[in-house]
Amino acid sequence: MTGTLYGVGLGPGDPDLMSVRADRLVRQTRHIAWFCKAGRKGRARSIVEGMFREDAETFAMEYPVTTEIPLTDPRYNEILSAFYAESCAHLEKAVASGEDMVVLCEGDPFFYGSFMHAYTRLKDRIPVQVVPAITGMSAAWTASGAPITWGDDILSTVMGTLDETTLCDAMARADALVVMKIGRNLPKVRRALAAAGKADKAVLVQYASMQGQTVCPLSEYDGETLPYFSIIVVHGQGRRP
Amino acid sequence: MTGTLYGVGLGPGDPDLMSVRADRLVRQTRHIAWFCKAGRKGRARSIVEGMFREDAETFAMEYPVTTEIPLTDPRYNEILSAFYAESCAHLEKAVASGEDMVVLCEGDPFFYGSFMHAYTRLKDRIPVQVVPAITGMSAAWTASGAPITWGDDILSTVMGTLDETTLCDAMARADALVVMKIGRNLPKVRRALAAAGKADKAVLVQYASMQGQTVCPLSEYDGETLPYFSIIVVHGQGRRP
Repeated sequence: MTGTLYGVGLGPGDPDLMSVRADRLVRQTRHIAWFCKAGRKGRARSIVEGMFREDAETFAMEYPVTTEIPLTDPRYNEILSAFYAESCAHLEKAVASGEDMVVLCEGDPFFYGSFMHAYTRLKDRIPVQVVPAITGMSAAWTASGAPITWGDDILSTVMGTLDETTLCDAMARADALVVMKIGRNLPKVRRALAAAGKADKAVLVQYASMQGQTVCPLSEYDGETLPYFSIIVVHGQGRRP
Repeated sequence: MTGTLYGVGLGPGDPDLMSVRADRLVRQTRHIAWFCKAGRKGRARSIVEGMFREDAETFAMEYPVTTEIPLTDPRYNEILSAFYAESCAHLEKAVASGEDMVVLCEGDPFFYGSFMHAYTRLKDRIPVQVVPAITGMSAAWTASGAPITWGDDILSTVMGTLDETTLCDAMARADALVVMKIGRNLPKVRRALAAAGKADKAVLVQYASMQGQTVCPLSEYDGETLPYFSIIVVHGQGRRP
């Protein structure tokens, strides 16, 4: 009898926005694992504070590297591949021995998530189920107080890590826009938004659905960088009765 | 003392994928309203079957018209505007008299939802809170069994109701793709996908997270039209260790 590996999306940060299924799996499953930065508690782990069973066995999978080595360095892929192989071996062993295992995932696991690196390695070896979740971008546009898309609007989701030309092109062609992974790319993101004619419509949402949530026009934020939990949205203006 | 109007996203269809907050609001609130096609139960209403309080008071807001008049006909906007005005007057009256009111919304209310037509009319008149939810597209890519986006992938969400040139252009430029509102636009959507070089990567998901869920390559579906609950996804192939 094998168990099942559950990749459980926890949503944008507010535990009240977890799905009923995710809530149940986190409370009832004995083996709980999550990815996190070395030496940190982990964002996913923080969302479910106080929810584990008393006899829970936990397994923090600490990234050996995050931003210390640039993505373009071949060592980056090498080190991460070894890390995923090792983490997955542990998950597989537990599940193969008959235990269910929950992997906590911030946001939605299949939407720019880190669980998919484990998923692709394990899906043909053990039973894996993915529980979708409310995305951080849904929490951001909800916090912004206006619908992101109407009618036939085209919504594009872009990462601030893209090069400026690609960013600007995608921004110019979309009716509604979500920009994530901004951080130190903020000056570039601002330039691309301006060139695409969308700078004055951009709204900055920080910590959507979490403590410290703030919403302001991007033009009123004068920093050069943004914390991880920051999303820029540009609302579509499509057809409406 | 006024109450609060809650626009409650119910997610993609499986009640187990409702948020903990949505589940609580639906079970505990006495006044429950929803939009639906005339003479139909309504998709949102079906999701919460059996969850209402015993003393619940319900209010079905039946669209006077859906596809009988083309979107381009000026009467369409006129009729719908009058309908929204009337529905909103009812919601406002109940809330202003001190009652909380839940409006059931399929999917995420601010993502191509119909609640936003009520929201924009009422948000400056009474307290309105929106509860985000898991989108139908999240359920679709989860059902497809593969992550929709990796690394720096650009995800574009497009409606099958767009003209073919716009569709094709948006499809060609995105790494990952979600197509909704397909229905009778399927032949046009197929042509646009082919012209954009993505036809052979397109996956058709019907009834994601619902009874009757099916997943198949779009090329294996030989119909000329699709039911409402159909989403086409094209998975991104971005950076991965």
